[in-house]
Amino acid sequence: MFETVEDYVPTGIHGVDEILAGKGIPRGHTILVSGGPGSGKTTFAIQFLYSGATQHNEPGVYVTLDEEPGDIRANMLKYGWNLKKLEDEKKLAFINVSPVRVAPSEKAGLIQIGMKEFRLIKLLEAIKQGAKEVNAKRVVIDPVTIFTLQYPDEIERRYAMRDLMRDLKRTGCTNLLISELRGTGMEREHQFEEYLAQGVVLLRTFLKGSRLVRVFQVEKMRGLAIDNQPRPYEISDQGIEVYPDATVYK
Amino acid sequence: MFETVEDYVPTGIHGVDEILAGKGIPRGHTILVSGGPGSGKTTFAIQFLYSGATQHNEPGVYVTLDEEPGDIRANMLKYGWNLKKLEDEKKLAFINVSPVRVAPSEKAGLIQIGMKEFRLIKLLEAIKQGAKEVNAKRVVIDPVTIFTLQYPDEIERRYAMRDLMRDLKRTGCTNLLISELRGTGMEREHQFEEYLAQGVVLLRTFLKGSRLVRVFQVEKMRGLAIDNQPRPYEISDQGIEVYPDATVYK
Amino acid sequence: MFETVEDYVPTGIHGVDEILAGKGIPRGHTILVSGGPGSGKTTFAIQFLYSGATQHNEPGVYVTLDEEPGDIRANMLKYGWNLKKLEDEKKLAFINVSPVRVAPSEKAGLIQIGMKEFRLIKLLEAIKQGAKEVNAKRVVIDPVTIFTLQYPDEIERRYAMRDLMRDLKRTGCTNLLISELRGTGMEREHQFEEYLAQGVVLLRTFLKGSRLVRVFQVEKMRGLAIDNQPRPYEISDQGIEVYPDATVYK
Amino acid sequence: MFETVEDYVPTGIHGVDEILAGKGIPRGHTILVSGGPGSGKTTFAIQFLYSGATQHNEPGVYVTLDEEPGDIRANMLKYGWNLKKLEDEKKLAFINVSPVRVAPSEKAGLIQIGMKEFRLIKLLEAIKQGAKEVNAKRVVIDPVTIFTLQYPDEIERRYAMRDLMRDLKRTGCTNLLISELRGTGMEREHQFEEYLAQGVVLLRTFLKGSRLVRVFQVEKMRGLAIDNQPRPYEISDQGIEVYPDATVYK
Amino acid sequence: MFETVEDYVPTGIHGVDEILAGKGIPRGHTILVSGGPGSGKTTFAIQFLYSGATQHNEPGVYVTLDEEPGDIRANMLKYGWNLKKLEDEKKLAFINVSPVRVAPSEKAGLIQIGMKEFRLIKLLEAIKQGAKEVNAKRVVIDPVTIFTLQYPDEIERRYAMRDLMRDLKRTGCTNLLISELRGTGMEREHQFEEYLAQGVVLLRTFLKGSRLVRVFQVEKMRGLAIDNQPRPYEISDQGIEVYPDATVYK
Amino acid sequence: MFETVEDYVPTGIHGVDEILAGKGIPRGHTILVSGGPGSGKTTFAIQFLYSGATQHNEPGVYVTLDEEPGDIRANMLKYGWNLKKLEDEKKLAFINVSPVRVAPSEKAGLIQIGMKEFRLIKLLEAIKQGAKEVNAKRVVIDPVTIFTLQYPDEIERRYAMRDLMRDLKRTGCTNLLISELRGTGMEREHQFEEYLAQGVVLLRTFLKGSRLVRVFQVEKMRGLAIDNQPRPYEISDQGIEVYPDATVYK
Repeated sequence: MFETVEDYVPTGIHGVDEILAGKGIPRGHTILVSGGPGSGKTTFAIQFLYSGATQHNEPGVYVTLDEEPGDIRANMLKYGWNLKKLEDEKKLAFINVSPVRVAPSEKAGLIQIGMKEFRLIKLLEAIKQGAKEVNAKRVVIDPVTIFTLQYPDEIERRYAMRDLMRDLKRTGCTNLLISELRGTGMEREHQFEEYLAQGVVLLRTFLKGSRLVRVFQVEKMRGLAIDNQPRPYEISDQGIEVYPDATVYK
Repeated sequence: MFETVEDYVPTGIHGVDEILAGKGIPRGHTILVSGGPGSGKTTFAIQFLYSGATQHNEPGVYVTLDEEPGDIRANMLKYGWNLKKLEDEKKLAFINVSPVRVAPSEKAGLIQIGMKEFRLIKLLEAIKQGAKEVNAKRVVIDPVTIFTLQYPDEIERRYAMRDLMRDLKRTGCTNLLISELRGTGMEREHQFEEYLAQGVVLLRTFLKGSRLVRVFQVEKMRGLAIDNQPRPYEISDQGIEVYPDATVYK
Repeated sequence: MFETVEDYVPTGIHGVDEILAGKGIPRGHTILVSGGPGSGKTTFAIQFLYSGATQHNEPGVYVTLDEEPGDIRANMLKYGWNLKKLEDEKKLAFINVSPVRVAPSEKAGLIQIGMKEFRLIKLLEAIKQGAKEVNAKRVVIDPVTIFTLQYPDEIERRYAMRDLMRDLKRTGCTNLLISELRGTGMEREHQFEEYLAQGVVLLRTFLKGSRLVRVFQVEKMRGLAIDNQPRPYEISDQGIEVYPDATVYK
Repeated sequence: MFETVEDYVPTGIHGVDEILAGKGIPRGHTILVSGGPGSGKTTFAIQFLYSGATQHNEPGVYVTLDEEPGDIRANMLKYGWNLKKLEDEKKLAFINVSPVRVAPSEKAGLIQIGMKEFRLIKLLEAIKQGAKEVNAKRVVIDPVTIFTLQYPDEIERRYAMRDLMRDLKRTGCTNLLISELRGTGMEREHQFEEYLAQGVVLLRTFLKGSRLVRVFQVEKMRGLAIDNQPRPYEISDQGIEVYPDATVYK
Repeated sequence: MFETVEDYVPTGIHGVDEILAGKGIPRGHTILVSGGPGSGKTTFAIQFLYSGATQHNEPGVYVTLDEEPGDIRANMLKYGWNLKKLEDEKKLAFINVSPVRVAPSEKAGLIQIGMKEFRLIKLLEAIKQGAKEVNAKRVVIDPVTIFTLQYPDEIERRYAMRDLMRDLKRTGCTNLLISELRGTGMEREHQFEEYLAQGVVLLRTFLKGSRLVRVFQVEKMRGLAIDNQPRPYEISDQGIEVYPDATVYK
Repeated sequence: MFETVEDYVPTGIHGVDEILAGKGIPRGHTILVSGGPGSGKTTFAIQFLYSGATQHNEPGVYVTLDEEPGDIRANMLKYGWNLKKLEDEKKLAFINVSPVRVAPSEKAGLIQIGMKEFRLIKLLEAIKQGAKEVNAKRVVIDPVTIFTLQYPDEIERRYAMRDLMRDLKRTGCTNLLISELRGTGMEREHQFEEYLAQGVVLLRTFLKGSRLVRVFQVEKMRGLAIDNQPRPYEISDQGIEVYPDATVYK
């Protein structure tokens, strides 16, 4: 379908495109964005969609599996991002695929069903429908961890993730999969998703002398010569800001 | 329901509001307070309720799953906090949702039931009832660990926690969930609750030269630009005191 | 029953009461004493009972789940503590709740029974009976590890431990639960008992330059402003001696 | 069948043949190439096939178990390697042995089958057929991790891997098995495949002062006196470049 | 039976009695001797029996669960210890309680039986019989690890070990239980046997600059004021030699 | 059968006999040779057999459970060791006890059988037959890991290994069991085989400044006063060369 990487999708996040060879994410790629609690994963993802919708005429879809859209809308106001307005202009669509809320008395049985409905087919249908509504070019799934947790068998989980990635590719969109990092610290076990994704972005936090420093790293980006060095970043009232020329460790 | 974070709930804990952008916890948020044994988690939580009840006209509910209310009342006297008086003035309610105490001869069977009754529905009903009694604006659940232990399956546990958090949000209250930290030391595995909560506060202890230092950190606070640096704190006869301008490590 | 901590139980152990705000253990508390092999846990506990019986007119009960009373009596002679004499004066009672010894040929079946009889009800009855005999004000259970090992399920184990602690509180006695520390080294996983107990005392051993140093620490003591710094201690022919003004690490 | 190692297969990768005694990989060997996400494993493998096909008249087969051939073709264009052209000239064949894609509605059952068909016999038949088509002298399987994941039993997995390696040897080709490294950091558990393979190449990343450094190492190469020291490498627009005379650590 | 520690059993091992308050092991105690492969555990144990038999008129019994008596006799000759002579003089008895050797064709079934016969009753009967033959005052069981491996359940294993220790005490002998250390390195998990034994001796190996140093440590010895500092030791042609005045770490 | 260690088997490996008290391996011992991938385990073993066959008139048997004899013959040519010639002169015999190769269509069932046939009896019969053919004095089993993997139960595995070692001893040969080391790095868990073997030789690799250094260590050798210090070694075109007077760490 696409044999040559012809163009790139600018992330619109300060310093990131510079790290990505001055270009951005290769169009159609599916990127894993992995970070700890409070590392700014959701901010990163919304910033990617917001920039696309407002500056590049690329509408986006935000699939949320944990947090409610209302909360995300509220939290993003601190950056001055009015998501409701984008939604009204059909430049952004939220999809809430979490299990259906039912009255407590009926819950025991329905949670079971809710969980099953989460699986691949339902997730894809929801994404496609949302993408169609706004003619989306960018998709975010947050967090993909909920999806993988549903496959207790290791090999099944891997197949499911690959199927998801292949189906996402067919949509022609550029996609971010938000993933939760298990441990703190420099040394860690790789997550199998890092091998399947076409790119991996890490948002971590380390001690540098007496301060915690936020560290951004593009671990992998297929089809693009990247800077894979760890770089400091901050979460300011402009959103994520990465410093592509600064070094992190001493 | 609330699309914009309109106001904030001051914690009344020395130094903490300063770290929280000078404001406090965004109203309606559910915050995880995680710490080791003796780190002052209960003191932190009571201080939050006490300050609300006495200074901001915000009554509170304290849901205890482990410790008996009488013990908490007694222990807090060392800070000069007369909880009994607040209870009498309908500014504080204790809810003891631990398994019903029965005569030893009947116990074997009832513990089983007690454990089952602990689950989500019972917990929520108890909270709502308590909240109604005092017209509560603040809720504490201590420790939420007991609640999550009851779901041996990883994905079920996550759904249960998210359901709890969503239901808590509907109450309109600002909530603290007290959680037990597994390990000592800087590097650790993240708890899945840290991803679900809207804020995470850590109360830890580290060695600094020849002394143990208590370390306070706001790891995450959605919708608010925070200082995420670790800061020293002490437990004095005034309760928790955090030093927002001091550094911890050398 | 007791809403205010009215008085304190001096431990009679050199340096420990000084660390406990110059007072001792709040009366009625249940304290976890956790240490490695050879760290002096039993010495600490006997010293607590011996001091109570001889200096404060507070008789004590020693519940032993592993070691035989005869061995404890013999080992304590090196400190000049004549336990037999205290027992004769009804100031101390040993309770041996370990499985009944039977002839080898009958053993297979009886160990099973012995193990079951260990559970909560039997343990409490034995404690109450012993406490009545000597009109006890102080109780030691050594080691509580044997008790918790009998509950393979994590949540059941926690409930059992809390039930034990609540029942102990009803006796009005001040209690020490002796617990075995799993690992050596500074960093460790917390034991769930540390969260349930009203106080936690650690007896550990660390390397300081070319020497091993014994390190005493009160990690937690509800209702009391304590010194939670690690302090050196020794096991001399006077028993445990803690140095509350010395520092441990360099 | 071959009692003497008579000749060697140059890898065509800058610096690697120099490390391999100036010769290359002993013909007919099966080599494990193990690295983290973004370490260049696929680039290494394609470079090996590309060099064989264009410079040594040794056509190659690329067996892909995860990524789609179209994506690999696209990604390799950044190095100026036109794989499509090689395929047209019958110097390269891609074999896609991943589970057959079916319509979502039929999927549940077929994934199961797809997984079973993956096993040894199917894999070998596919390789032989592809090798015959282009008269291949070089074979790559990427990643072999998918193959081993299908054998949950440890001893069965080992036998399956050995059978695969013996069957590959009978083809007379020189083979690379791409494998995923679990952890980051210097210390690690060996994978059992490292013992079975006739050679092991590691592609890792370590911190050196404030920079991440890519580190290449030939851990093992039967029948050849190798340089087993870690050496720096880069991924430039020429592909992998190893610096055989530079040292890595400071 | 013995309420007072009246006398001590000299180990006869260079430097060890000095560490044991100049006295030796309290008579009747059961001591765990734990070390890695090649640490001299068997040498330590034989030296204890040899010294008893030749210098203190205390015959001994050596219960071997792994190694054959003939091998131990042969290996000890390098220290000039003629065990055969002691056996002939009825000052030493070897007991081989390993599973009966049978012809290969009959083996499958008999190993099963051999394993079952290993359990407590058989072991104790064998020890008592051996002790009676030579009128033993000292007993060694090497390695006790084989005994504990037979109880997969944690609580059952602990009861079995305690029963073994109580039964050994009734023999009136002083006993060494040889145990295998799992890991290398300073930090380790304690073995539950360390809590049950009345004394614990560690034989370990650490790096000191560019050399491995053998390190002896008495971690615990009930009823005796010991030096618990780590001390260097060597295995010379005189057997184990501990240097009680030297320090190990720098 | 042999009560005294009367003589020694020179290994013929540069530097090793010097470390072994200038003598070699006590005749009849079974030695564990444990190392990582590419550490030279097979070279070490072949060198031991080659030296025996050509210099001491001691023919040898090489039992291979993983690698095919043809590959070993080929790989050893780089050291100038013509194994085929030794085989023709009846000074060396290869025994391939790996599962019988069958046509793929018949495989599923036969692997099962092959695995079962691997067990103790078959292995011993094969060894005895091979030993008889060449009148062997030295035996190598490579790798013994395959043998132990077949016993999933911990205690069964230990018995099986001890039975193997006892049966090997009855052959009167001196034996090397090749074993795979799990982890890299200095600190490690001991393998249970290290306790059962009469000697343990480690072949490891560590970082020293900017270089990897190969480190040889005799951890244990019953009946012989050894140098247990780690020593550097190299794999040159003469095979393994150990430097018994050099130190490894700085």
